Amino acid sequence: MSLRIGLLGATGLVGRTMLALLEARDLAIEPPRLLASGRDPGARLPFRGRSLPVAAVGPDAFAGLDLALFATANAVSARWADVARGAGARVVDNSSAFRYDAAVPLVVPEVNGELLDARPTLVANPNCSTIAIVVALAPLHRAWRLERLAVATYQSVSGGGAAALAALERGVRDGLEGPPPPREGGLPPFAFNVVPQIDRFEPNGYTREEMKIAWESRKILGLPELPVSATAVRVPVRIGHAAAVSARFASPPDPAAARALWSAFPGITVVDDPARGRYPTPLEAAGSDAVLVGRARRDLSQPDALEFFVASDNLRKGAATNAVQIAERLGRAGVGAR
Amino acid sequence: MSLRIGLLGATGLVGRTMLALLEARDLAIEPPRLLASGRDPGARLPFRGRSLPVAAVGPDAFAGLDLALFATANAVSARWADVARGAGARVVDNSSAFRYDAAVPLVVPEVNGELLDARPTLVANPNCSTIAIVVALAPLHRAWRLERLAVATYQSVSGGGAAALAALERGVRDGLEGPPPPREGGLPPFAFNVVPQIDRFEPNGYTREEMKIAWESRKILGLPELPVSATAVRVPVRIGHAAAVSARFASPPDPAAARALWSAFPGITVVDDPARGRYPTPLEAAGSDAVLVGRARRDLSQPDALEFFVASDNLRKGAATNAVQIAERLGRAGVGAR
Repeated sequence: MSLRIGLLGATGLVGRTMLALLEARDLAIEPPRLLASGRDPGARLPFRGRSLPVAAVGPDAFAGLDLALFATANAVSARWADVARGAGARVVDNSSAFRYDAAVPLVVPEVNGELLDARPTLVANPNCSTIAIVVALAPLHRAWRLERLAVATYQSVSGGGAAALAALERGVRDGLEGPPPPREGGLPPFAFNVVPQIDRFEPNGYTREEMKIAWESRKILGLPELPVSATAVRVPVRIGHAAAVSARFASPPDPAAARALWSAFPGITVVDDPARGRYPTPLEAAGSDAVLVGRARRDLSQPDALEFFVASDNLRKGAATNAVQIAERLGRAGVGAR
Repeated sequence: MSLRIGLLGATGLVGRTMLALLEARDLAIEPPRLLASGRDPGARLPFRGRSLPVAAVGPDAFAGLDLALFATANAVSARWADVARGAGARVVDNSSAFRYDAAVPLVVPEVNGELLDARPTLVANPNCSTIAIVVALAPLHRAWRLERLAVATYQSVSGGGAAALAALERGVRDGLEGPPPPREGGLPPFAFNVVPQIDRFEPNGYTREEMKIAWESRKILGLPELPVSATAVRVPVRIGHAAAVSARFASPPDPAAARALWSAFPGITVVDDPARGRYPTPLEAAGSDAVLVGRARRDLSQPDALEFFVASDNLRKGAATNAVQIAERLGRAGVGAR
């Protein structure tokens, strides 16, 4: 039978990407039920030649659904997750509201997808940068055992949502002939600039985005004590997050062996041919479901460590693709058989 | 008496910035002798209300000069440095042609300016990213002794010269409505992208730009065995290089103490007030001679380490300002008294 899928937050950047993926992939589904909070109900979105209405989320919005994909802010996810579960839908939530709840699996299917076999009723979808980093680390960790992780990110503005992306576009146009103006509230421009703040600051001096990379890498890889540090930086790119990664292992890693491990791992495309100027870039990653990995080299500053560079489409594998992959595996595990 | 200064490479981005600094600062100089290789001789550049001619460099171009500032590619510097020295001029060279020669001091005046007291006839000006990183590290190293350095850079396109900057501007305009086209030769666009290659690749998988950060940090700080790793990335910013830095020390560092050390050190402006959204950005650094430092925090992934973020104007402190500061100190040390 066809799955009945609901999509809360359907009109956002990630929600629209989820809808496009549901349209293109081969999961047998009925036309999704599109839901929105806030001001977007009343919109219509195309799906397989039809125009689907976007309904306001409400207490009865999830009745009859097998799966509900949430592409919403934390408060909205927290408000509606139990309502959807109460109506019998399994929830895949892209917000960070439930990611650090020990009872909620945080899943990247290629890495810890076996957690879905228990048919959880709520699954958290990880942070956009973390997903790509963890996919690239997983085969290396299995071979050499990860002991330390340090990351600096180059994150696109679409990660901040449609309003942030519009601010970038305005800033670029306003900055064609000179410095772009500040964003609303006096914030530093995205255009022609890099901004070393994503999300709010924690008391330890790291931003919450940086701590998400630490907390979520540990949880997904099953390494609760893993030492992790990150610097998360917004760059004037539309779509595609990149990261410079340094990973130290218990056994000595090797760049050629790393490339072989990556090539054999699902979801990874190795782009690593410096002699031909080939390495991952966000523009190349945009529109792809793969995590691009390259620039593999021995870390010169510490023994038994490897440095590499990843790029992925933050709206796809960093968000919508990963959520839809979770939904597909939950679906195959027999959602309709409840 | 007034110093007689020559400027080879006067028409490039760094050369023009040098000329602007010579105009604005209080060093007593005669109108500089402007020199160029390649196709630029015949141009004229303004200086203190006059229009100065740009002459072709040649065997007699340096006669009578006290100082020659070189803002040129390696091959040009290598060709003319000894000619200038033979004519009696002290050379401050911004290329990397002489930086790794043990007999040539590599100088950041705030850090190892005492090397200029010996009145060397050739001084190398360091790499644009390295200067800012080393200025920020110097007071911390004096307090706690540096033992490991890891860096990821966010480097502006002006670091690649005027042609690269023009390619960025074209790419941004061509990319206003969609993905920007590749650069000449099929290279990945600068616009709306990040490119993890600056300079050519070395056999160890690092780019030469990354190795410059390692080699030059060691030489300037006097730590020939310092473990250093770097990832150098071009971002679509016009002017201003930034870097995420992780530095491990022999003694435990402290973020508040680091801010105090920075505040007391010449050439640094501390921009580190997360609660108010204040941290270094390249747009804020552009046009300033200071190295901006902020985001100081204990490194969560290794003991006795500090993470921070720096930004500086790569054409000014990263190149022209540092060279002119060297020239000023050489001048004060009695260049005219030879």
